[in-house]
Amino acid sequence: MSDAVQPDPSRLDPTMQAEIEALRAQTGETRRATVAAMEDILHRPFPVLDHGFVRVVDYMGDDGAVVQAARVSYGRGTKQVREDRGLIRYLMRHRHTTPFEMCEIKFHVKLPIFVARQWIRHRTANVNEYSARYSVMDREFYIPAPEHLAAQSSDNRQGRGTVLEGAEAAEVLDILRGDAVRCHANYEHMLGTDDDARLGLARELARMNLTLNTYTQWYWKTDLHNLMHFLSLRADSHAQFEIRVYAEVMLDLMARWVPVIHEAFRDYRMGGLHLSRPALSVVRRALAGEAVTQADSGLSPREWRELWAALDLPMPE
Amino acid sequence: MSDAVQPDPSRLDPTMQAEIEALRAQTGETRRATVAAMEDILHRPFPVLDHGFVRVVDYMGDDGAVVQAARVSYGRGTKQVREDRGLIRYLMRHRHTTPFEMCEIKFHVKLPIFVARQWIRHRTANVNEYSARYSVMDREFYIPAPEHLAAQSSDNRQGRGTVLEGAEAAEVLDILRGDAVRCHANYEHMLGTDDDARLGLARELARMNLTLNTYTQWYWKTDLHNLMHFLSLRADSHAQFEIRVYAEVMLDLMARWVPVIHEAFRDYRMGGLHLSRPALSVVRRALAGEAVTQADSGLSPREWRELWAALDLPMPE
Amino acid sequence: MSDAVQPDPSRLDPTMQAEIEALRAQTGETRRATVAAMEDILHRPFPVLDHGFVRVVDYMGDDGAVVQAARVSYGRGTKQVREDRGLIRYLMRHRHTTPFEMCEIKFHVKLPIFVARQWIRHRTANVNEYSARYSVMDREFYIPAPEHLAAQSSDNRQGRGTVLEGAEAAEVLDILRGDAVRCHANYEHMLGTDDDARLGLARELARMNLTLNTYTQWYWKTDLHNLMHFLSLRADSHAQFEIRVYAEVMLDLMARWVPVIHEAFRDYRMGGLHLSRPALSVVRRALAGEAVTQADSGLSPREWRELWAALDLPMPE
Amino acid sequence: MSDAVQPDPSRLDPTMQAEIEALRAQTGETRRATVAAMEDILHRPFPVLDHGFVRVVDYMGDDGAVVQAARVSYGRGTKQVREDRGLIRYLMRHRHTTPFEMCEIKFHVKLPIFVARQWIRHRTANVNEYSARYSVMDREFYIPAPEHLAAQSSDNRQGRGTVLEGAEAAEVLDILRGDAVRCHANYEHMLGTDDDARLGLARELARMNLTLNTYTQWYWKTDLHNLMHFLSLRADSHAQFEIRVYAEVMLDLMARWVPVIHEAFRDYRMGGLHLSRPALSVVRRALAGEAVTQADSGLSPREWRELWAALDLPMPE
Repeated sequence: MSDAVQPDPSRLDPTMQAEIEALRAQTGETRRATVAAMEDILHRPFPVLDHGFVRVVDYMGDDGAVVQAARVSYGRGTKQVREDRGLIRYLMRHRHTTPFEMCEIKFHVKLPIFVARQWIRHRTANVNEYSARYSVMDREFYIPAPEHLAAQSSDNRQGRGTVLEGAEAAEVLDILRGDAVRCHANYEHMLGTDDDARLGLARELARMNLTLNTYTQWYWKTDLHNLMHFLSLRADSHAQFEIRVYAEVMLDLMARWVPVIHEAFRDYRMGGLHLSRPALSVVRRALAGEAVTQADSGLSPREWRELWAALDLPMPE
Repeated sequence: MSDAVQPDPSRLDPTMQAEIEALRAQTGETRRATVAAMEDILHRPFPVLDHGFVRVVDYMGDDGAVVQAARVSYGRGTKQVREDRGLIRYLMRHRHTTPFEMCEIKFHVKLPIFVARQWIRHRTANVNEYSARYSVMDREFYIPAPEHLAAQSSDNRQGRGTVLEGAEAAEVLDILRGDAVRCHANYEHMLGTDDDARLGLARELARMNLTLNTYTQWYWKTDLHNLMHFLSLRADSHAQFEIRVYAEVMLDLMARWVPVIHEAFRDYRMGGLHLSRPALSVVRRALAGEAVTQADSGLSPREWRELWAALDLPMPE
Repeated sequence: MSDAVQPDPSRLDPTMQAEIEALRAQTGETRRATVAAMEDILHRPFPVLDHGFVRVVDYMGDDGAVVQAARVSYGRGTKQVREDRGLIRYLMRHRHTTPFEMCEIKFHVKLPIFVARQWIRHRTANVNEYSARYSVMDREFYIPAPEHLAAQSSDNRQGRGTVLEGAEAAEVLDILRGDAVRCHANYEHMLGTDDDARLGLARELARMNLTLNTYTQWYWKTDLHNLMHFLSLRADSHAQFEIRVYAEVMLDLMARWVPVIHEAFRDYRMGGLHLSRPALSVVRRALAGEAVTQADSGLSPREWRELWAALDLPMPE
Repeated sequence: MSDAVQPDPSRLDPTMQAEIEALRAQTGETRRATVAAMEDILHRPFPVLDHGFVRVVDYMGDDGAVVQAARVSYGRGTKQVREDRGLIRYLMRHRHTTPFEMCEIKFHVKLPIFVARQWIRHRTANVNEYSARYSVMDREFYIPAPEHLAAQSSDNRQGRGTVLEGAEAAEVLDILRGDAVRCHANYEHMLGTDDDARLGLARELARMNLTLNTYTQWYWKTDLHNLMHFLSLRADSHAQFEIRVYAEVMLDLMARWVPVIHEAFRDYRMGGLHLSRPALSVVRRALAGEAVTQADSGLSPREWRELWAALDLPMPE
């Protein structure tokens, strides 16, 4: 858990802040597993991007709940803390996934629509999104910070290259801001919610005029196994920056919630490397002292490069 | 919620009772939604059948959590109690299911294997079952009470008819008890856990000798929408008695947990009737004063009988 | 199956038409169940909205496959055609859903992004969407036909009211067209794919400038049970027009594919009415000759109105 | 695909063989993707264990269907065979899973109940099982071959150790056979389907007397992504022998169906090794020439042993 990641109520307007603090003031006694570090931050927004946030709205279970379910036990399921840690690490290492489904977490997230479109592809979650058929969308758009205004990568069809600067950067920002503002103003005009109430177009139609960087929000609830799957893909360096920053905050929240599982997750799932059958053969031969070359490795030139890069070692001559 | 359904710690042996009471003694303060009626019974077993039970191990959310998610709100989401109730009933009536996915519940259940085989067909739940590869199965079997010893129905291929009595009933009970006991004794003998340690067969093999009325147990976690789907099928009069009794206890537990949702569920989902297109046409014509007959109803004789039975009215001549 | 719904190759440009016809020219012999009415239209696009389409790319199973699975049979599973029809109707009437999961269908769909956002909420399907991280989005937007340019409903928070006309309609269409065109031109300008290659912004960023009526496309595959669930919600009069037109074409395609199941679906699922417990009580009393009033009905005024409207009968005084 | 794995009609009785051959004789012309190697074996049973089988009942798609969906293309989607193969291997290597969901397969499987209980835990499949509420279960049980009659492993809580022999083996086989036969005879006696029709117990009750090695059967349908997930867990050396033999036959069937995907699956998923973060660090240091010891490796003694065993190299001193 990084010190830098802290809730910041000022991300919300005073009315919402007041609602959240009123909710936080209501406490009750419970016989359920309770995690002090989660209670500390419950309901409060963690800022992400220029207008987005993630806040934990509810949680079920803790490190012990996984142990309890794995043992199908009557009480807490814990033996010694040390044994519990060993069991959790064993389950993670050997991909016994069902006990991790026994913890559940619910977030309230505010995010740009184009990020929401990626996120929703994770199907094993429960979602309630703010409806633009019922309600009017706020006038809030994601405009990248200048340091994230990257050019198309020249060697990766879906990646980013160098950062745009100067006049180019300014032009892009002007376009993004200008189009979003104009489209939203026209959206309100068509709805008749500006000074001119003439048009009154149906909300479900008017929304089609909004740009994809408009912010939406949803309640998103998932179990810990599926959360880890989401984080392993989205807190990864290959993920698009705009979704990765959400995943990084959620990874930090996971560390507060289930610290032992979080540690095992980082050791066995996030920080590791999957060797394919031919790559494993190369590593084995090299460790046995053989001078392996790409030509006799069974790997394509691309896989050969990827292997040594992943090992963070110089490519053999 | 019926008064008859109460937890009964004596269903468990003293060690387990002690574990549960120790767990109940640990309370904490929380900012999450808390339901007093659930806290009252948390962890305690509700007896089902001769050796089974259901106990609530954890829960997330309450009636208000559904309202909160439906409104994607910042605070509790509640307006007036009356408005919240109206919204919940509206959502239930119009099959807006996603807000009900925002509540979650976790049960510990002990049940016969043949019941577990029906239950597991509900796929949208998380399950950790006691493993007969790791552990030895207890010597506990389901033997029906005499009043549930029904003959095969003569007019329903999957139903029950009249109750067996006298010598027939006695013979059936003797067989069920005898075979279960003998198979379990031989299971232990093959494992080498009886006086004779000679055989020592692998647990994963020896278990195949057990009968399907042997009790197993699992942790079962699901969201409220899927729980209601389970209950609408399994607390129904067409469900097999041995799974229905579990569903009935869970329906009662649902009433303690989310009373407003439970009421709406009973009004709009459980107690209602789905009219097919042709059946709707019959009802419409009859309400308009027409004397409809089976012959001109568009219904098969079977559907015609089913309709009037479902309406609880005498079949028109 | 309506005569009006026919494939129309001219919806695609000549290159794509040629690809599709080349694919159609490749036929093979198979021992799998084959449906002639599906082979007739396989791969060809059915137009929807102004630029969208639905086309069937593959299918698995037919009416008989449901019978075969319900009977867990070795051969085709069919007895008499009449008996098979009876079984299918029985399964549909009694909500035995798993046999309907044994048929599978795969569509290629082109649709506006705001429609895709509704559609994707059906989670039990497989989806591959055209990626705006890899590829450039075409310059195609949904612009409603004048007769679908509806005002916000005054009595339904999510519905449509009367149609806009004259100057108001013209103004809305101008806005929608103008903003979509400008945003897309700026999108291409930021990408550097217009005459000015200076900017070269990453595709994953530039896409955020597009409006929600931009067309996307995907492969969407689902089983027949989940297709029927989708159709029961989206081919319904409460669904937004822009998704309903897709569902209506798919319902027609379903009639070609599995005609007996389609008929049962229309009788028992689409054309019927679910009576709540209190509504059932009203119907029962009225059929028994009682003069029921709203005041003693147990229904709210709104539910009372909804009931008689659904029955298509005048509300009793 | 191994030559040893061949369909064997004699696994079924002559009536079923005839039904299958009648089905195979019905061929049709189709515009769908067709795989000759699948047509060859369609419907025919591949024997597994003493009475079980797996047979392919239907399939959708081929290697090309994955390429087609990944490209969201209009025609077959294929470019050069070589490029298609490269794309498939890229998708597999980088865990792009959704295109593999675009192929679907349906099996008819006969298997012991205790194997079915493991299998059903894979939730993302469609299943229709033979119902013991409707029908009478056949008198067929799994009795292990003598060479699979293993003792409990002494160092693995869920594994098998040495094989039982001589008198011990004979005693186990006698028990398994004797109990299964007696329980089934009593099952039929309670049903009244033997010479004595007196009892007539309901089928849904009588079935509880059966042992867990009784054979059941089901239709099981899944997409290729989930099939590969199933195979990676169940065709693995840690899986119980009695489910692994089914997975091995299905892996062979997969090789006939989608040979290019099968090859990629074996290279990148089945034959590889996942290195945890600390294990990756050990490998990196060793490859760089450092003499790493367990003490300074960051691995527990157990993980240290597992690493060198997985690398198939002697443990460093």
